Amino acid sequence: MADSKPFPALDGDPETAETLLRAVFGIVMDEAVRKGTSASEKVCEWKEPEELKQLLDLELRDQGESQEQILERCRAVIRYSVKTGHPRFFNQLFSGLDAHALAGRVITESLNTSQYTYEIAPVFVLMEEEVLKTLRALVGWRSGDGVFCPGGSISNMYAINLARYQRYPDCKQRGLWALPPLALFTSQECHYSIKKGAAFLGLGTDSVRVVKADERGKMVPKDLERQIKMAEAEGAVPFLVSATSGTTVLGAFDPLEAIADVCQRHGLWLHVDAAWGGSVLLSQTHRHLLDGIQRADSVAWNPHKLLAAGLQCSALLLRDTSNLLKHCHGSQASYLFQQDKFYDVALDTGDKVVQCGRRVDCLKLWLMWKAQGGQGLERRVNRAFALAQYLVEEVKKREGFELVMEPEFVNVCFWFVPPSLRGKQESPDYSQRLYKVAPVLKERMVKEGSMMIGYQPHGTRGNFFRMVVANPALTRTDMDFLLNELERLGQDL
Amino acid sequence: MADSKPFPALDGDPETAETLLRAVFGIVMDEAVRKGTSASEKVCEWKEPEELKQLLDLELRDQGESQEQILERCRAVIRYSVKTGHPRFFNQLFSGLDAHALAGRVITESLNTSQYTYEIAPVFVLMEEEVLKTLRALVGWRSGDGVFCPGGSISNMYAINLARYQRYPDCKQRGLWALPPLALFTSQECHYSIKKGAAFLGLGTDSVRVVKADERGKMVPKDLERQIKMAEAEGAVPFLVSATSGTTVLGAFDPLEAIADVCQRHGLWLHVDAAWGGSVLLSQTHRHLLDGIQRADSVAWNPHKLLAAGLQCSALLLRDTSNLLKHCHGSQASYLFQQDKFYDVALDTGDKVVQCGRRVDCLKLWLMWKAQGGQGLERRVNRAFALAQYLVEEVKKREGFELVMEPEFVNVCFWFVPPSLRGKQESPDYSQRLYKVAPVLKERMVKEGSMMIGYQPHGTRGNFFRMVVANPALTRTDMDFLLNELERLGQDL
Repeated sequence: MADSKPFPALDGDPETAETLLRAVFGIVMDEAVRKGTSASEKVCEWKEPEELKQLLDLELRDQGESQEQILERCRAVIRYSVKTGHPRFFNQLFSGLDAHALAGRVITESLNTSQYTYEIAPVFVLMEEEVLKTLRALVGWRSGDGVFCPGGSISNMYAINLARYQRYPDCKQRGLWALPPLALFTSQECHYSIKKGAAFLGLGTDSVRVVKADERGKMVPKDLERQIKMAEAEGAVPFLVSATSGTTVLGAFDPLEAIADVCQRHGLWLHVDAAWGGSVLLSQTHRHLLDGIQRADSVAWNPHKLLAAGLQCSALLLRDTSNLLKHCHGSQASYLFQQDKFYDVALDTGDKVVQCGRRVDCLKLWLMWKAQGGQGLERRVNRAFALAQYLVEEVKKREGFELVMEPEFVNVCFWFVPPSLRGKQESPDYSQRLYKVAPVLKERMVKEGSMMIGYQPHGTRGNFFRMVVANPALTRTDMDFLLNELERLGQDL
Repeated sequence: MADSKPFPALDGDPETAETLLRAVFGIVMDEAVRKGTSASEKVCEWKEPEELKQLLDLELRDQGESQEQILERCRAVIRYSVKTGHPRFFNQLFSGLDAHALAGRVITESLNTSQYTYEIAPVFVLMEEEVLKTLRALVGWRSGDGVFCPGGSISNMYAINLARYQRYPDCKQRGLWALPPLALFTSQECHYSIKKGAAFLGLGTDSVRVVKADERGKMVPKDLERQIKMAEAEGAVPFLVSATSGTTVLGAFDPLEAIADVCQRHGLWLHVDAAWGGSVLLSQTHRHLLDGIQRADSVAWNPHKLLAAGLQCSALLLRDTSNLLKHCHGSQASYLFQQDKFYDVALDTGDKVVQCGRRVDCLKLWLMWKAQGGQGLERRVNRAFALAQYLVEEVKKREGFELVMEPEFVNVCFWFVPPSLRGKQESPDYSQRLYKVAPVLKERMVKEGSMMIGYQPHGTRGNFFRMVVANPALTRTDMDFLLNELERLGQDL
């Protein structure tokens, strides 16, 4: 039965809870922050799944455990986790550890609120608005709308749903059966979320018409034009083009001006998936790569990638000023969005989204921006470009490295050619053997814990490495290390 | 140009970063954890939006700020935020601050990884599997599948998409145009995410057939049967029933056995939206409320609600063992899910979801469970029921309070009848006047910062309070406070 003693949620008393949290903060500082970002520590501690299961003792039991045991578990979780903030973690489009962003994330977690109403998230409703306004200004819009989504894939889906709704508001109520077959267009280099999104939204992957990209990975506007006409000839109604600013593998930027011309001609919604490349807008030097983005109807931009804001920080930005988000997604739940509240209920943004509870994703970016300033963030972006260029020059200088192509962004794609294959380009099995090198080196580096870099096949090309220069703490030393380490790991191949 | 000095991402050097983080941890401990959960502090610090904007100085500028300024900003963000861990925050289905869960969240943030591959999330891939297995066992399944989603709304959407795909795998490629009109069924008391989901998935809100609920808020199986026949008669193909275990306002549990019988008879996918009520499965005493849940095909369960794991922790559980999730959502992106990896690529779970990057949501629940044990969590659930019952008895005892109905869960719905309305039940404007009371009291409590409780109209009933007993730190004192405070705030009405 209930009595008036507090429940022992915190193992008895608030002081124990504080002791626990202080101890965990200490462990996080030592293990994840200090060691996790130190080049002299391993980037990962590889264990086979079965062994790792044993080490972690994952099973959840009836009995609770002591504070001491819990702290040991915290240490183990960190020990066997990959250190994505480590200067030798080159594996994904996100990396690095920004102290201000992490501070923002810890505060967010401690406040544990949902972004849906001003009532319970007054600071964050206003802050999200301000952050989105700032991002929109960089796109080139003085007004508009937007929302933070749980990742770029969902931002892209939102864009497709909004474009569909704008053209056919009936869809919301009557479904796709009330609509003619639709077609949307994106390049062969687009992110896979476009097809996933089309399937999820009921459009089907067939509705995605794949436009050719040139040898640099950029969409070919002429082929876009051709595909639009073909779709129309087949009886489908084109409604959206999704251009990409910063493709996943090659880091290519679609020619937005030319694509916007095509969209304008055909009355199509232009979405720009700038999840990866959006942060380039901060750089006066490089933002020309996104020239024309101001003509888009929607932009997906993930500051958790190049800006290292922390997973997830994914903005969907809209040029729309007609409250399309709310019309498209709203359902006026009366238990949450009461109309007789004592404040302006336009501040309750929950009906802009298809989620109900929604995490606060703005604080980490806001705090980082306040600390670094736009100038500091711009320097980061410029520096990443410069370091990528340095790496390219080094790759060219060294025997045993072959560039896939000159990058225009911070993805540097290259092959490592091991000693036994050098000078054998003419041999018939050269490519076959070359493509088997990356998986072997990947296994070796992970098992040693010396670094992590991704590889993939791409188009007609077999496996090559994709280096991503994103972590703001990187230096030339890390670029040199990457190449030296590949040489060392592959010297016997 | 790039040189070999580290970038001043951390204001110059790692030590400054550590100093910052230690200071922020201290602020979080003092302001959010200690004061934020203390009954002697305010639960919120109300400011009008324009004033709050001024106080926060939200604008993002070119110039960065000093460490001191940043720390002051951290304090301000916490000061003006609502304290959802406070013992007088009764406003939502989530509340409370569990120190172990918070510890898990802070570690998650410091490791900043994505759940998609074993490569970069070895600990969390295995941990998610184990946590889902434990939750499935409580549902009554020895095998199955599942995934953590960004909130219950998206879990519900997943269920609808999976049911649709299972019946019509063609849909993924060819879209809804290749399918007959579909119908899904849920009660009038269901969460609004079902309709939002139907719209988003292209089915349209018309495809959602609303089944009657009885006066307790439970779906009427007879009416479900009737609606299914009606839909069929209209040429639609029924494919899914979404039952609710723990409705949002009344906390009602649909009769799952009877609904499962109907689903079995008609060959329909049974989804149970147990986002709110799922945690009752931990209680031997109360789990009968979900009898029949083992017959479901999918279950949505949010441990961030009654278990206070922290936003967001939302599990979608599946009985399926055919890898339906991967078939339905997968797209085999070759840059992420390379098939020539050196470990078992079945461990790469990223293709189960429509997201690409996905946050780690399992650690907070796992760590809390390890610390409390299943028994500790069961005690919490039992205690919440007992406290809700205590409150009901108090409401009945006191003049000026009127219960909407006897609750079966921890939602206690009631009216506060102010002195001027007592004994006036027969007067023609009684209801009109009564329904205006809650918004007035809400404004008063928020402006004083003394407590927060939600109200809403519901069906034919006007505004009443919905008390949610979820915070594990609550005691009878807090229940008494709630009633006393309403009396105090409303004594002049």
